Amino acid sequence: MDVTHVLHMNGGIGKSSYANNSLLQQNGISLTKHIREEAIRNLYRSTLPSCLSIAELGCASGPNAFIVVSEIIKIVEKLCKEMNQKCPEYKVFMNDLPGNDFNNIFKSISSFKEKLSNEMKSQIGPCYFYGVPASFYGRIFPNQTLHFLHSSYSLQWLSKVPEGIENNKGNIYMSITSPLNVLKAYYEQFQRDFSLFLKCRAEEVVEGGCMILTFVGRRSENPYSKECCFIWEVMAKALNDMALEGTIKEDKIDTFNIPSYNPSPSEVKMEVLKEGSFTINRLEVSEVKFESLLESEKCESFNDFGYNVAKCMRAIAEPMLVNHFGKAITEELFYRYKEIFNDCMSKEETKVINVTILLSRKPYV
Amino acid sequence: MDVTHVLHMNGGIGKSSYANNSLLQQNGISLTKHIREEAIRNLYRSTLPSCLSIAELGCASGPNAFIVVSEIIKIVEKLCKEMNQKCPEYKVFMNDLPGNDFNNIFKSISSFKEKLSNEMKSQIGPCYFYGVPASFYGRIFPNQTLHFLHSSYSLQWLSKVPEGIENNKGNIYMSITSPLNVLKAYYEQFQRDFSLFLKCRAEEVVEGGCMILTFVGRRSENPYSKECCFIWEVMAKALNDMALEGTIKEDKIDTFNIPSYNPSPSEVKMEVLKEGSFTINRLEVSEVKFESLLESEKCESFNDFGYNVAKCMRAIAEPMLVNHFGKAITEELFYRYKEIFNDCMSKEETKVINVTILLSRKPYV
Repeated sequence: MDVTHVLHMNGGIGKSSYANNSLLQQNGISLTKHIREEAIRNLYRSTLPSCLSIAELGCASGPNAFIVVSEIIKIVEKLCKEMNQKCPEYKVFMNDLPGNDFNNIFKSISSFKEKLSNEMKSQIGPCYFYGVPASFYGRIFPNQTLHFLHSSYSLQWLSKVPEGIENNKGNIYMSITSPLNVLKAYYEQFQRDFSLFLKCRAEEVVEGGCMILTFVGRRSENPYSKECCFIWEVMAKALNDMALEGTIKEDKIDTFNIPSYNPSPSEVKMEVLKEGSFTINRLEVSEVKFESLLESEKCESFNDFGYNVAKCMRAIAEPMLVNHFGKAITEELFYRYKEIFNDCMSKEETKVINVTILLSRKPYV
Repeated sequence: MDVTHVLHMNGGIGKSSYANNSLLQQNGISLTKHIREEAIRNLYRSTLPSCLSIAELGCASGPNAFIVVSEIIKIVEKLCKEMNQKCPEYKVFMNDLPGNDFNNIFKSISSFKEKLSNEMKSQIGPCYFYGVPASFYGRIFPNQTLHFLHSSYSLQWLSKVPEGIENNKGNIYMSITSPLNVLKAYYEQFQRDFSLFLKCRAEEVVEGGCMILTFVGRRSENPYSKECCFIWEVMAKALNDMALEGTIKEDKIDTFNIPSYNPSPSEVKMEVLKEGSFTINRLEVSEVKFESLLESEKCESFNDFGYNVAKCMRAIAEPMLVNHFGKAITEELFYRYKEIFNDCMSKEETKVINVTILLSRKPYV
């Protein structure tokens, strides 16, 4: 699987789009607001840039792309008033892989700006938006040009499916039945990818600049922990059921693996310490219950719940699945996903674990 | 008509897409290569930036978006070797209105980079691509951040349809039968737009930085000159014929006007002198014969010629026309366009006049 070109959230604004099925991620973002608030206040006070560069890494498309940018601009504008400072110019970089639906984001910029101005009840500093279509596992900005980077629910995606896991049969991710080499390969791919990420950002972020990164991760040191593998095990079960009935070939499942890794806090910390360019200011774990999807206006009853989770997963995983299994299976697959999920729900609590780290760039030497 | 959201070239890569119907524009771009070569050599030698910022304004989508960027990088890399200089980093900004098909451009970046590396037979400096979805009749970059701006076949588009031209009945652009106030309104809108463009760029371009702007313009000082109005007169005739047959309502045509102006060299020059921030290094007129479309591999015979011109016009104007007249009329309209164009072709030479100006930013005071 060529992850750079195949991995992207469902585009557009239709019923299966990420734009319309990303409430869970929105709830996740809201949990870390206090960290961003503290970080941006400290950053702005200590650097007072005339032009503040902000990047949203893995922005996807839809309303979530603008949440953090909006927050940051509001905080800075308020701070400027308090400090009697001229407001800075803002450069806002929206980054994702080239297959992302940037057209959708770009069409929303003018209404975003309008909404922000209305909420602020005053003219804000000039605000320039740029799309950055490239993998963040490589350089995407010139040297020392960024002040504030944010990434939520993106860094658990790997740059590629780990190599040498052909024996992960019947699974599509790390599972309790996966051989040990599979786990090792996943973890090593995470280490390579995240350390490369840190190395690239270390060149791009200005001294004192900061990054807030939220992974879909796990609390447990056990990498087979249900808390992270659950959503993919439901998918694997749905696929395997279809294979049993002959709708999918079994060897198609054997050759499909999700390019994702859900790290624990200590695994994240270890890579940051090894790379060495950033100070760790905070490392927190939080959780979003899948039940929060019940709050969606579009979710009318508890019976709709599995349906909503299935739509959420479809918005995330459909392009990858279609690339491997073809288009014909998706309707049935996600119908089954819903059924299996609802069944599991009644037996155990389902949630997403967030690992969030706040880093600041050490002085250049 | 809300030009910012309605004006865009046909997206995608289908048979009516701009990507597949922009050979004429490509031929136009090739005519001004000598100007770019000289300009970028002088600019690089005099500024030696560690990071060179290039912007393509009105990039549309498809292969033309990359022609000039590719040229510039090649020239700079060659110059660096000659001068024994370390190659710079490149920041490349692709600008167009938010309705442009940026997704299409973004998916081509990796193959563009690969092709460039192959052609150069060596590693080029790091090259960062950004999309800039905004009207260039407003600020789109922070202060003093750009070295080289290029725009081809975009600046003849106005920010809006001129006001007060309700009496331009039966026409969709300036025509020999348009009342004088229509001409005046068009010209004044051009003056307002182009002077605003210059004012914005004057803040954004570094001292000594340069801009090469090519308009679809005219040689003649007569604004009704056939050399610029021709392509729209064919369109007006096709629409009026359809109105005569009842397929379109006449008053629909009366309320439709193209937001475009084709300036003469002296009109361009006058706005630059009035604004005052740029030195005029060159001002040239060139022409592309419509016959150059015959060279297209896809154009099999002279009979196809009108068909190719109609496809070219469709790629440019379809979104605007659909927005005003609805989707149902387009097939017939462009069939008629082809017929009328072929008929005119046999009577006179048809061509596009390019007005190209090379400007450099005067020292800031």
